[in-house]
Amino acid sequence: IISKLPAVGTTIFSQMSQLAASHDAINLSQGFPDFPADASLLANLARYSQAGFNQYAPMPGVMVLREQIAALTARCYQRQLCAAEEITVTSGATEALFVAIQMLVQPGDEVILFDPAYDSYAPAIQLAGGKSVHIRLDAPQYRVNWQQVAAAITARTRVIIVNSPHNPTGMVFSQADWLALEQLVCQHNLYCISDEVYEHMVFDAQPQRSAHCFAALAARSVIVSSFGKTFHVTGWKLGYAIAPAALTAEFRKIHQYVTFASFTPAQYAIAEMLQQHPEQVTNLGQFYQQKRDVFAQALADSRFQLLPCQGTYFQLVDYSAIAPTLSDSAFCQWLTIEHKVAAIPLSVFYQQGSDARIVRLCFAKQHATLHAAAERLCQL
Amino acid sequence: IISKLPAVGTTIFSQMSQLAASHDAINLSQGFPDFPADASLLANLARYSQAGFNQYAPMPGVMVLREQIAALTARCYQRQLCAAEEITVTSGATEALFVAIQMLVQPGDEVILFDPAYDSYAPAIQLAGGKSVHIRLDAPQYRVNWQQVAAAITARTRVIIVNSPHNPTGMVFSQADWLALEQLVCQHNLYCISDEVYEHMVFDAQPQRSAHCFAALAARSVIVSSFGKTFHVTGWKLGYAIAPAALTAEFRKIHQYVTFASFTPAQYAIAEMLQQHPEQVTNLGQFYQQKRDVFAQALADSRFQLLPCQGTYFQLVDYSAIAPTLSDSAFCQWLTIEHKVAAIPLSVFYQQGSDARIVRLCFAKQHATLHAAAERLCQL
Ligand SMILES: CSCCC(=O)C(=O)O
Ligand SMILES: CSCCC(=O)C(=O)O
Repeated sequence: IISKLPAVGTTIFSQMSQLAASHDAINLSQGFPDFPADASLLANLARYSQAGFNQYAPMPGVMVLREQIAALTARCYQRQLCAAEEITVTSGATEALFVAIQMLVQPGDEVILFDPAYDSYAPAIQLAGGKSVHIRLDAPQYRVNWQQVAAAITARTRVIIVNSPHNPTGMVFSQADWLALEQLVCQHNLYCISDEVYEHMVFDAQPQRSAHCFAALAARSVIVSSFGKTFHVTGWKLGYAIAPAALTAEFRKIHQYVTFASFTPAQYAIAEMLQQHPEQVTNLGQFYQQKRDVFAQALADSRFQLLPCQGTYFQLVDYSAIAPTLSDSAFCQWLTIEHKVAAIPLSVFYQQGSDARIVRLCFAKQHATLHAAAERLCQL
Repeated sequence: IISKLPAVGTTIFSQMSQLAASHDAINLSQGFPDFPADASLLANLARYSQAGFNQYAPMPGVMVLREQIAALTARCYQRQLCAAEEITVTSGATEALFVAIQMLVQPGDEVILFDPAYDSYAPAIQLAGGKSVHIRLDAPQYRVNWQQVAAAITARTRVIIVNSPHNPTGMVFSQADWLALEQLVCQHNLYCISDEVYEHMVFDAQPQRSAHCFAALAARSVIVSSFGKTFHVTGWKLGYAIAPAALTAEFRKIHQYVTFASFTPAQYAIAEMLQQHPEQVTNLGQFYQQKRDVFAQALADSRFQLLPCQGTYFQLVDYSAIAPTLSDSAFCQWLTIEHKVAAIPLSVFYQQGSDARIVRLCFAKQHATLHAAAERLCQL
């Protein structure tokens, strides 16, 4: 068999979680919470399932959930959506990203993305026959240089993929970033895929901005989000894509043959949460900001240097004071096996690699876990 | 935007279920049960979720579920599988079929499939840049003419997609069919995608056969099945793909970027069902055979002519004695709106259409539903 993805191995997230498990390490690698989801969400799931909501959901998602997504989007970004025509529920944000890329990328098309980049973008582009064009962001701020983006646009450029708040760096787009993006997308008739799965985790009283806030951009965007991240249930694999009706129609044509629909009882369970506890979404930024700060405080006496973190549940740390000669992958192996804390090497998010001495730690953890991990890290 | 699937609309299953709902018709169109799933399965779901199994499952599926799938396959087909390397859990059989097609089909490759065919195969092939080659099966037996298949194989042929028990016709492959398939696949170095989602619904004491039973075929096959169908929870969207380790490695490379993983608590819930109530799988053939017979009996006095049904939960009926001039699509509209029974037109399963006067009725329903529908159908 000729491999469709010859360069690809098992995702780093699976690898590191496995390594963590087999060495009994505190797992700060793959991004997921180690604390329970809200009890009422789990009660909802049980109730809807036991009430018999176990057959196929409508292909675009159950209507009550789409209506709640529309209400949430109106609350957060003042964007009024048509729940029937602009919202599609997917089997995780991963599926939404995959379908959006299949929909927009024709063979030979170029897609601009920013390294460090989440690992699913480039393979999805490759499967669509497209070419990913990687623009590097540099430590410690990881800001986009929009002139550089403008210079990278060619006649074959079709899509720009952005991700704010940004995994793995925690960088958050400013108003100026969004405006620059909007201008390029509109000027060159591009499309935007806006991966906003960490949208509700923005810190330091920054305003929550999104592609939704920029009408001309939104008109050419597929905006992707994730309930797994917002409600601390990454294993529920429930996300969604928002796009103008014409794009959504094409999106659904593909979605209906990729997964068709998503787990029905979870759709009702989350719709009810959104309706009854909207404050859980609104409070998420504060919730994770506190974890960021607890973790940073606990690491204050370590020899790790913390990079800025404006959003997401990831903290980048520079370990050059500890092991300047070790590559980040080697450092992560060593850290996991010898010191029982698992992290993700930053270089795996770069197409061309990176020799920065930086790794990613996930702080979506109980305070006790953060303290226990920090204690180990402070000994280095 | 240039459509990737210009010829595709919303799946007929969504269309007819919607029409059924808006006209308050008995919905025998889209295939799903109208009776509850086993209470212990639903209790399992609630229990695992409340016990905290809500984060990412391992990308290939939770190990206890893969082990139960291996045990089930050994019981049903005497095939010994390596749960770690040959089994991947997917977000429904739809995802498994989609990934298998993306994995095996290179641009320009030809894929042989049999019309009537499930509606997701051809668009998935098209998205991979391949060409679907449709071989027609004819009423009332819908048997494959393997000489015709041999004649359709070219230097570009790469995959044959089979589906036994067959949706929508209920045709089940004989030993001779499987052997002929095996011979062609091996002789021409093809691959087989075997859609076996109705594998446990085989009637009239026929032996249960599968691509698993033919070693040389299995070595070149991706075999797809569905827990949604086996456990009466189509909305759980949990399926799996079985393939030799080398194929599975490539399958997972794509799966990890399509959905990454599937709903975690359901994986544990189904693993426990398989372990504690394996008889539910073994009894499924009898369970649905009874429904087939109840429905056939109830239609005995109608003017519909029932076609043979050896498996699946679908019954084809010929309505030419009732409305010889109506196309099957027009007949389904009329039947749903005027007589409150929704069905699926057979012609939508054909690339080139079909002028047979045949529609598909789903009998995965409570006996009361089957009787109520039959009462309406007997009035025509
Ligand atoms: C799908 S596993 C990866 C989880 C994640 O988003 C991350 O760790 O970056
Ligand atoms: C995914 S909706 C279609 C269900 C089904 O398999 C059918 O009705 O044939």
